[in-house]
Amino acid sequence: MSSIKDVATLAGVAVGTVSRVINNTGAVKPETRRKVTEAIRELNYVPNEVARNFKMQKSKMVALLLPSIWHPFFSELAYYIEDELDREGYKLMLCNSGGKPEKELYYLDMLRQNKVAGVLGITYNDIDNDITTEIPIVSIDRHFSKKITCVTSDNREGGRIALTELVKAGAKKPVFMGTIPQAFSETLLRKEGFVEEAERLGVEYAVYEQPDPVLDDDAYFDRFLSLHRDADGVFAITDMFAAKYIDRASRLGIRVPEDVKVIGYDGIQDHPYFHPVLSTIRQPVEAMARTAVKLLFRRMEGEELEDETYRIPVEFRPGETT
Amino acid sequence: MSSIKDVATLAGVAVGTVSRVINNTGAVKPETRRKVTEAIRELNYVPNEVARNFKMQKSKMVALLLPSIWHPFFSELAYYIEDELDREGYKLMLCNSGGKPEKELYYLDMLRQNKVAGVLGITYNDIDNDITTEIPIVSIDRHFSKKITCVTSDNREGGRIALTELVKAGAKKPVFMGTIPQAFSETLLRKEGFVEEAERLGVEYAVYEQPDPVLDDDAYFDRFLSLHRDADGVFAITDMFAAKYIDRASRLGIRVPEDVKVIGYDGIQDHPYFHPVLSTIRQPVEAMARTAVKLLFRRMEGEELEDETYRIPVEFRPGETT
Repeated sequence: MSSIKDVATLAGVAVGTVSRVINNTGAVKPETRRKVTEAIRELNYVPNEVARNFKMQKSKMVALLLPSIWHPFFSELAYYIEDELDREGYKLMLCNSGGKPEKELYYLDMLRQNKVAGVLGITYNDIDNDITTEIPIVSIDRHFSKKITCVTSDNREGGRIALTELVKAGAKKPVFMGTIPQAFSETLLRKEGFVEEAERLGVEYAVYEQPDPVLDDDAYFDRFLSLHRDADGVFAITDMFAAKYIDRASRLGIRVPEDVKVIGYDGIQDHPYFHPVLSTIRQPVEAMARTAVKLLFRRMEGEELEDETYRIPVEFRPGETT
Repeated sequence: MSSIKDVATLAGVAVGTVSRVINNTGAVKPETRRKVTEAIRELNYVPNEVARNFKMQKSKMVALLLPSIWHPFFSELAYYIEDELDREGYKLMLCNSGGKPEKELYYLDMLRQNKVAGVLGITYNDIDNDITTEIPIVSIDRHFSKKITCVTSDNREGGRIALTELVKAGAKKPVFMGTIPQAFSETLLRKEGFVEEAERLGVEYAVYEQPDPVLDDDAYFDRFLSLHRDADGVFAITDMFAAKYIDRASRLGIRVPEDVKVIGYDGIQDHPYFHPVLSTIRQPVEAMARTAVKLLFRRMEGEELEDETYRIPVEFRPGETT
């Protein structure tokens, strides 16, 4: 890494002059400014956010695209993203883009016009054609067909853990309960991990899936309950699916966890005051948020990242449903 | 109201020229621009957000200060605020300012520097000295000592309704369970409405309060349970207080609603899958959000508002706890 001193030496000026050029404060002769700028470029000198800002002439704002801030997983994520951005003096612009690709495209335009310095996105809209690898974007949970950096929880491992925990709790034929998203989503790996682990352990299992989004809860759960009335273990793709299933099952006299063990995914319950407290695969939301921001900053500095997908380890959080 | 045609007539130019000046597009001679600008000023012409932007040279961004987006009430509020801003082409900057007055002051500075066009705030920090009535700010739930417009749910009416519903459900001596905030807060009116209605109806009641914030839940609820072990009705200042009380009471064998009826305030539960489903005074979050944004736009246009406080009606939402 080059230092500000290296830049001053190469440009043949004092360190204070380099600082004045970087911060754009005080008088610097055009010729001196040119020398300093060239030295910065030659040494690929990236001092910190001040320099970044200077180099890119970008705003100190990052846009966060979420389907809806109202969802507890997304609001927790936004909380930590704002906190991490704030440490570097960046502001957060929030966009609820659920079902509105045109809103997402608008923010991508802002990015191209340097009105925002970067974009963090959880998008379920189909905007692949408008994404390029050159612009600083970090995706959360969703892969694009192009090489956009993605931060996600380790969904496959989560699926494996869920299968293991259901078996450990006594389930003989656990069922995966999920959806089939329109575009490839990391959440598909929850099923894959579940299936792989079941096959590895020689456990009988079943998979129940319907196209995403599920618009008719009655149809979705009635069909599940007619096919898997006697399931003794259920791994639901999200906590909300788990909660809805438990509610409907209990109306049929199916008891949780006595008759059926249930594990969700997300960890949206923050406190133990509302029941059932779900047994769940907890998303490492804080780590995902901070990692996504740090990677975005590296992309904003023009750095190439080592990996395309960063998977953050998950943990099983036992509740009242296993 | 003046029209763009009035401006064109007064300035002696074509309507298209006025439009070019307003939108800052196309070539306009300095002298013509001066004439148009003067005509706009003389007629106090405010066409729409385009003109507003032109006049104020402000960004199309509004900052939202919240203690924490992670809280379900705040995330629902942020959802509707973003939606309402988006209708007018405004973007939302999100700031979690909980316990950090310096963050709030930073956004007020941005407002003074025209980097944001307005500020919506739920602030529990003591920043009164830095607020002035000239700048476009709309507060939610919190009064400042100065005359800042405030949008809030009708907390007093909420307190009255809670008392009435507890009595209706059979409570003979309902207890208010609350906190005493450091600065005056609209939430204080929840107690006042409760007390007023009890006195009006000649119902025996009690009030239990501790300083806000409650840092030690054990101390808070142990003391409540030692003083009001035999309470037959509780109105908790928020749903979270209600949920925590129910949890602790049930550990002592106190049954809800058989032994004690409980009503909270907020309506943070969005679905009936987690129990107990609280009986609660539901905040009209969507109406509060949209009203706050509309009032802020009027303030941004320099309008004087009729009222200092806008109280949105609340409703009782029965659950499983009364």
